[in-house]
Amino acid sequence: MTDGAGEVVTAVTAALLVVGDEILSGRTKDKNIGHVAENLTLAGIDLREVRIVPDVEEEIVAAVNALRARYTYVFTTGGIGPTHDDITADCVAKAFGVPIAVDERAVAMMLERHKREDLNEARLRMARIPKGASLVDNPISRAPGFRLENVVVMAGVPAIMQAMLDNVLPTLTKGIPVTSQTIDASGVPEGLYAAGLQTIAARHPSLSIGSYPSFGPSGFTNQIVVRGRDLDAVARARAEIGAHIEELRARKA
Amino acid sequence: MTDGAGEVVTAVTAALLVVGDEILSGRTKDKNIGHVAENLTLAGIDLREVRIVPDVEEEIVAAVNALRARYTYVFTTGGIGPTHDDITADCVAKAFGVPIAVDERAVAMMLERHKREDLNEARLRMARIPKGASLVDNPISRAPGFRLENVVVMAGVPAIMQAMLDNVLPTLTKGIPVTSQTIDASGVPEGLYAAGLQTIAARHPSLSIGSYPSFGPSGFTNQIVVRGRDLDAVARARAEIGAHIEELRARKA
Repeated sequence: MTDGAGEVVTAVTAALLVVGDEILSGRTKDKNIGHVAENLTLAGIDLREVRIVPDVEEEIVAAVNALRARYTYVFTTGGIGPTHDDITADCVAKAFGVPIAVDERAVAMMLERHKREDLNEARLRMARIPKGASLVDNPISRAPGFRLENVVVMAGVPAIMQAMLDNVLPTLTKGIPVTSQTIDASGVPEGLYAAGLQTIAARHPSLSIGSYPSFGPSGFTNQIVVRGRDLDAVARARAEIGAHIEELRARKA
Repeated sequence: MTDGAGEVVTAVTAALLVVGDEILSGRTKDKNIGHVAENLTLAGIDLREVRIVPDVEEEIVAAVNALRARYTYVFTTGGIGPTHDDITADCVAKAFGVPIAVDERAVAMMLERHKREDLNEARLRMARIPKGASLVDNPISRAPGFRLENVVVMAGVPAIMQAMLDNVLPTLTKGIPVTSQTIDASGVPEGLYAAGLQTIAARHPSLSIGSYPSFGPSGFTNQIVVRGRDLDAVARARAEIGAHIEELRARKA
């Protein structure tokens, strides 16, 4: 990517893999995608793709391998609990072709919450970590997430996932954060400003310029969002779009 | 798939492709995935995969082609408005290798909302429909969605997407709806019932049995969900799991 000053900026990219039948059936409404998206954006990491797959080994393995080859980082949520449907850690081990076994570092963490005699086979399942992975601390229920090469495996329970993301983010390579500016175009229909917006967008190829209508009781409200890593270009595009919207408003009035 | 009675049930499957930079940046929180998941499940259509991709032609084309080859239906949301970042219809045409042009049926629908002189180039963009597609009515702002073979293209604005889904669902092949039963296991830790649940799950290979913890101010609450198309098997598994949880509760008390 080339920014406005001609400097080459290598983007740090990511994908998110959400594992879970319960999201695909609609029983559970995902709360993790938006949180991960927002926090990666703040860290200058471009979330480029999200996939939601069921609790099926071949689907998870295939998705992990497709995504880890393409993006700087892959984050997964879900499927690392103690029950039979929690198969994400095994699938990640399989995707990398490494063994998985009970990890004494994870057991030590879990002993902060459980007595040793309560660490039955099911709970020890949560201490099974692929060989070569580093652990991601879980301050809530102790059973850790982990990172294996560029794949970060997190819990599906939102509070735990958020804590794990907070713990792992400082250890990752960050990019230059994207700056975003919003122009409120309410009252001016998208169909009226589309042509002008396209012209402005063409003048700023390094920026992403989007128009986002929403529909509520009072009809459509539109917002135009300018995003990019070049602060000056973002400010220029914002001013040009603002002037165009004002002109259209004046023409209507 | 073989159900309890040995009858072969061919599953009707689907994928959802969400198009939009704004979801990946975290600016907009998706509200469509949960709605589509819930309504497809009610219609007996198994949502097997969701992908979120950016407003980038090659990404959308690749995802449409990967998904339409794998599933009975593919639904897309987003990217069919009048602005330059709305490229979903063109991408679907490209994925199928068919031409796309302004469709007089779509223009007729849009004339119910707009005067002909207001149908400028940007608005007519919303009437561009790939050759061979049937239209999906949009009762809110008229610009239609469309269906081309097994791909259904819908708006991203939730109210419009929901209306389009309501309009297209009756025209699709439905499967046998999945029945779902929930057992409240609150107060019994997952780590205690995991082994028993695995044994019960192994007795009912035609069912999907999941354990879903959530974490709130009062700690963890767990729910166990049994899903399947064989009503008797679902009822049997539910009774077995309920008895197991009661036994564990009694043992703790």
